Amino acid sequence: MPVYNAPLRDMKFVMQEVLDIGSLQKYEKFAEADMDTLEAILEQSAKFSSEVLAPLNAVGDHEGCTRHADGSVTTPKGFKEAYKQVVENGMMGLSEPEEFGGMGMPSIWSTATGEMQSAANMAFAMYPGLTNGAAKAIKIGGSPEQKATYLPKMTTGEWTGTMNLTEPHCGTDLGLLKTKAVPQADGSYKLTGQKIFISAGEHDMSDNIIHLVLARIEGAPEGVKGISLFIVPKFKLDESGNSGERNPVSCGAIEEKMGIHGNATCVMNFDDAEGYLIGEENKGLRVMFVMMNEARMGVGMQGLAQSDVAYQNAVDYANDRLQGRSLTGPKNEAGPADPIIVHPDVRRMLMETKAFNEGSRALIYWATLLEDLETVHEDEKFREKCDDYLGLLTPVIKGYITDKAMATTIDCQQIFGGHGFIEEWGMSQFVRDTRIALIYEGANGIQALDLVGRKLARNGGRALMTLNNEIDAFVADNSGNEKTAEFMDGLKTAKNKLTEATMWLMQNGMTNPDNAGAGSVDYMHMMGLTSLAYMWAKMAVTAQAAIDAGSNDDFYSNKIITGRYFVLRMLPMLDAHLAKIKTGAEPVMALEAAAF
Amino acid sequence: MPVYNAPLRDMKFVMQEVLDIGSLQKYEKFAEADMDTLEAILEQSAKFSSEVLAPLNAVGDHEGCTRHADGSVTTPKGFKEAYKQVVENGMMGLSEPEEFGGMGMPSIWSTATGEMQSAANMAFAMYPGLTNGAAKAIKIGGSPEQKATYLPKMTTGEWTGTMNLTEPHCGTDLGLLKTKAVPQADGSYKLTGQKIFISAGEHDMSDNIIHLVLARIEGAPEGVKGISLFIVPKFKLDESGNSGERNPVSCGAIEEKMGIHGNATCVMNFDDAEGYLIGEENKGLRVMFVMMNEARMGVGMQGLAQSDVAYQNAVDYANDRLQGRSLTGPKNEAGPADPIIVHPDVRRMLMETKAFNEGSRALIYWATLLEDLETVHEDEKFREKCDDYLGLLTPVIKGYITDKAMATTIDCQQIFGGHGFIEEWGMSQFVRDTRIALIYEGANGIQALDLVGRKLARNGGRALMTLNNEIDAFVADNSGNEKTAEFMDGLKTAKNKLTEATMWLMQNGMTNPDNAGAGSVDYMHMMGLTSLAYMWAKMAVTAQAAIDAGSNDDFYSNKIITGRYFVLRMLPMLDAHLAKIKTGAEPVMALEAAAF
Repeated sequence: MPVYNAPLRDMKFVMQEVLDIGSLQKYEKFAEADMDTLEAILEQSAKFSSEVLAPLNAVGDHEGCTRHADGSVTTPKGFKEAYKQVVENGMMGLSEPEEFGGMGMPSIWSTATGEMQSAANMAFAMYPGLTNGAAKAIKIGGSPEQKATYLPKMTTGEWTGTMNLTEPHCGTDLGLLKTKAVPQADGSYKLTGQKIFISAGEHDMSDNIIHLVLARIEGAPEGVKGISLFIVPKFKLDESGNSGERNPVSCGAIEEKMGIHGNATCVMNFDDAEGYLIGEENKGLRVMFVMMNEARMGVGMQGLAQSDVAYQNAVDYANDRLQGRSLTGPKNEAGPADPIIVHPDVRRMLMETKAFNEGSRALIYWATLLEDLETVHEDEKFREKCDDYLGLLTPVIKGYITDKAMATTIDCQQIFGGHGFIEEWGMSQFVRDTRIALIYEGANGIQALDLVGRKLARNGGRALMTLNNEIDAFVADNSGNEKTAEFMDGLKTAKNKLTEATMWLMQNGMTNPDNAGAGSVDYMHMMGLTSLAYMWAKMAVTAQAAIDAGSNDDFYSNKIITGRYFVLRMLPMLDAHLAKIKTGAEPVMALEAAAF
Repeated sequence: MPVYNAPLRDMKFVMQEVLDIGSLQKYEKFAEADMDTLEAILEQSAKFSSEVLAPLNAVGDHEGCTRHADGSVTTPKGFKEAYKQVVENGMMGLSEPEEFGGMGMPSIWSTATGEMQSAANMAFAMYPGLTNGAAKAIKIGGSPEQKATYLPKMTTGEWTGTMNLTEPHCGTDLGLLKTKAVPQADGSYKLTGQKIFISAGEHDMSDNIIHLVLARIEGAPEGVKGISLFIVPKFKLDESGNSGERNPVSCGAIEEKMGIHGNATCVMNFDDAEGYLIGEENKGLRVMFVMMNEARMGVGMQGLAQSDVAYQNAVDYANDRLQGRSLTGPKNEAGPADPIIVHPDVRRMLMETKAFNEGSRALIYWATLLEDLETVHEDEKFREKCDDYLGLLTPVIKGYITDKAMATTIDCQQIFGGHGFIEEWGMSQFVRDTRIALIYEGANGIQALDLVGRKLARNGGRALMTLNNEIDAFVADNSGNEKTAEFMDGLKTAKNKLTEATMWLMQNGMTNPDNAGAGSVDYMHMMGLTSLAYMWAKMAVTAQAAIDAGSNDDFYSNKIITGRYFVLRMLPMLDAHLAKIKTGAEPVMALEAAAF
C-alpha cells in the first residue's frame, strides 16, 4: 500500500527561505498571515493527507463512482466522510476572502495544502479544487447578489462546483458549442444541451452542486463571440437561500476512464434547466479564461504532486528491495544482495524525479506568490510584472510540468520492476492518474500554442524581456561566489539558448505561422527548463548562504547536490529542443494528410 | 472501437526491397521460401489479425482472465475460439523446423506475422509467442527424446508453453532463486516452490501447458552457478504421449495488472511437481538466456506493434475530428472547423510516431534476418558478424524501442484529447499494454547494462567496430547521390557521436564502473537512434533508387519525407544523451541513500 508524507521541510524551505513569504504580512490584506499559523496549518494538512486521504486513494481507484438508475452518483467508500472533515475544518476557505467566510490567507498557503491533498488522493482533491475554481468565476464575474448567494456555501464546501465547457463535438474549439440558453421573463434562462467530461458533475458529498455552464443565448453571434456563462444549481434555491426544488440538470452517464476513478466524470444533460447569467451576455469566455488560468496552475501542481508521491514510494522500494550487487562492490555484505538504490540507473531515475519535483515546487510556489503580490503590491509596475510573468508561466507550469511528470511517474513505476505493473502496489495508479493532467484544462499542445502564439508576443514581448533582465541581474549579483558558479553558468546558458529559440520563432513564425506551431512544444519545454534553472539557482544561493552562515543541516548540502544534477543532467535537453525548433515546419508538414 | 490494418506495403518494402529476403531461397534450408508463399501468408495473417484478433482486444482488456476456486482459469470470451484457429491454420509453426511439423520458413516471416498479431491483440499474441519461446528452449537444450515428446504439439500449438523464472524475492537477480528440485530414482525431479508473474501460466485454451522452470537441485552451489532448467508439464504424459495425470503445479492467483488483462499472469505453486531436467545440471541459465534473447527481440516487437496500432487510430481520429482552424488559413472551408491533422503539433506527434515505427520495423526485421542468415550462411566470418550484431542489437531493440514506444503511444493517445482518457476509445489500452514491455524479459535498465557492461566489450569491441566499418562503407558507397545526402550526413554524424560516447564509457568505466552504469540508458538510446539512422539511410537509398528508376508510386517519396523527419527532428536527441553521459557518475551518485 503506497504511502504519502508531505515534504514539509522542502515546502517551508521554498516558502520561507527562498521566497520569504513571511514578508507578505506587511500588507494589510495578509496582516494575520504569520508563520506560526502557516506551520500549524501545514502540519494539520499533512496529517489529514497522510492519514485520511492517502489510504482512500486505492479505494477510490478500485471502486470508482457508481451511477444509479435515478441519475444519482455514489462516491467511493470513505470519500463522503473525508469530505465532511474538509468542510468541518474549513480547509477549503484557507485562501478565500473573509467576507465570504474564508480565512483570507495568501494563495501560496493553499497551494501547499492543495499539493498535499492532490499527492495523497488526486481524484478526491478535485472535488474541493473544482469548487474553489467555480467560486472564482463567480467572484470575478458575478453580481453582488450572486456572490452573496453562492460564495459562502462554496467557501465552506457545503456546496461544490463544476465547470461545464466540453460538448461531444467540441473541446478545444469552444466556438463550436451548441448548448442553448433561452431568456425567461423573470431574467433567468432555460438551458438545454449536453456537456461531457464534467468532473465532479454529480456525487453524494454535498447538499448542492453549482454548475458553471457555457452556453449560447438564442440569437447570439456564431463562434466564440456568442458564448455566455451561467450558474445552474443542481437544486434551485428556496427563499431562504437553501437547496430547494430539483433543477432539470442530471448525470446521464459516468465515463469509464484510465485513471482518477474516484472522481465522477459525468455526461451532464440540461433539459430546460434554470440558469442565471454571470456578467454580460456573450462575454462568458472572458470570465471562464481567468478561472481557467488558475485551474491550469492547479493541473501543473497535480503533475508535481503525483510525481512526488510516486517518488516517495519508489525511494522506499529502492531502499528495501535487495537485488544484485553494486558495480563497485557489495554495499550490504551481510545481506543476500544490495538494495537496488546502489545501482546507478535506479539513482538516475530517482535523482531526475527529485530534481524535477523540487524545481517544480519552487516554480509553482513562486508563481502563486506572484498572484498574491499582484493583489497587494503598492507599485503598479511590479503588479504589471506579476501579471506578465503569470501569463508566461501558466502554460509552462501546466504543459511542461505535466509532460515531465508523466515521464517521472513512469520512471518511478519502473523502479518496481514487475511489481510496478501490478495494481496492488499502487504505482500504476500514479501513472494512470497523472495521464489526465496532460489533457484537461487545455491539452498540452494548446498550452504550447498559447505560450508561443499569444504570451510571447503580448505587449511587444515585454514579459520575457523583463524576466530575462531579472535573470541577468540575478546572475550578475551572484557571480562572485564560486560555490554556486555552476548554477549561474547553467542559468545563463539556458537563458541564452531560450533567447536564441525565441528569436528564431519570432522571425520565422512571421513568414509562416506553422514554423511557430511546429516548434511550440519544444519551446515550452525550453522555457520549463530555463524556469527551473532559475529556481534552482535561487535555491542554491539560499542553501549556500545557510551553509556559509554555519548551518550543518544536511538539507542544504543535499539541496545543492540535487540542483547540480538538474544543471548537469537535465539542462542538456535544451540543445535537442533548440535544434528541433530550428528545423521549422517543413519536415513536420511535408507529408500530405492522406499519406499518414 | 479501435481498428488495426496490417501495414503490408511497408512490411513488404522492408522485407523484399530493402532486405531482399527473397535471396534466402538460394539456401537449401529455405528453398521453399518463395515470395508468392510469403505474400499469401502475410495476407492471411493480416486478415486474421484485423478481423478476428483486433475485435477481441478490448474484450480481453475488459473481461480479463478469471481464476476459479479449483485453480482453473478462463480466458476472455472469444480467445479460445481464436486460438483454435491459430492451431488449425498452423500459424505457430510458420518458422518452426519441419521435423517437428513446422513449415520451416525464415524467422523474418514469423516476425512479420507476429507483429500483426501483437498489434491487433498483444495479450492474445503472448500465448502463441510464449509457446514458441518455450519450444525454443527445448530445441536448444533438450534431449532428442524431449524434443520428440514436446515439440510437435508445441509447434501446432495444441500444447502451450511458459517460462517460470521470477520468484517473489527475485526477478533480475536470479541467483537468489529458491525453488527446489529433488532428484528421484527414475531420473525425474520433484519441484517445490513458488513462481510469480507467470504469463499464460494457466488457461483454458490448450490440452496441456509445458512449463519451463528454473530451480535449484538439492545441494547445488549457491547463486547463479546452481540453477537448472526443468520441463514441468501441467499434465504428465501417458504412455502414448498424451496428457494424462495432473501434475501438482497450479495457479494460486491471477495478478490484477495495469494492462494485458487478456493474458493470465499467474502465481504458480509447485508442490512436489514432477519435472525433467533440460541439459546439464546447474547449466539452466545458459539455455534460458538463449531463449530470452529471442524473447527480448519479441518484446521490442511488441513495442513497435503497439506504437503502430496506436498510430493508425490516431491518424484516423486526426483526419476525422474537426476542431479549430489551420494557422495558415482554413483547409476545410465548407466545414465548421478543420480536421486536427492540419495543426503542426498534431502532425509532429504523428510524424514522430511514423518515423519511429518505420525505422524500428526495419531494424527488427533486419535483426531477425541476421538470425536466419546465422543458420545458413556459408561464410563463418559472416555468421560471426550476425552473432555479434545480434548481441548488440538485442538489448537496443528491447530497451530503446519499448522506451520510445511508451512515449509514442502516449502521444497518440494525446491526439484524442479527452477521449484518449476514456477507455471506450481504446487508446488507454495501447498505453497500458505497452507499459509492461519496458519491464518484462529484463527491465530496460538491465538491457542498457547488458549493452554497456557486456556486449560492447565482448571480443575487444569487435561487434561495434564491425558495424561502424559497415556503416562507413555504406556511407562511402552512397555519398555520390545528392538526393540522399541528408541521410548519409545524419548517419555519419550519429555514428561519430556514438563513437565519442563509446570511447568515453570505455575510458571512464574502467576507473569507475558507475560511470558506465550512470550513462547506460542514454547510451542505449544513442545506439537506438544510430541504428535507426542506418535503417533510414538504407530505406532512403532503396526508395530513391525506385524513384530514379521511374516509379511514380507515392510510397517512395513519402518514405523519404518520413525519413527526413527522423534525421532532422529525432537525431538531435543524440547531443542531449551524449552530454548527459559525459557528466559521469558523480552527479548521479553524490547523494547519500538516506537523503532521498
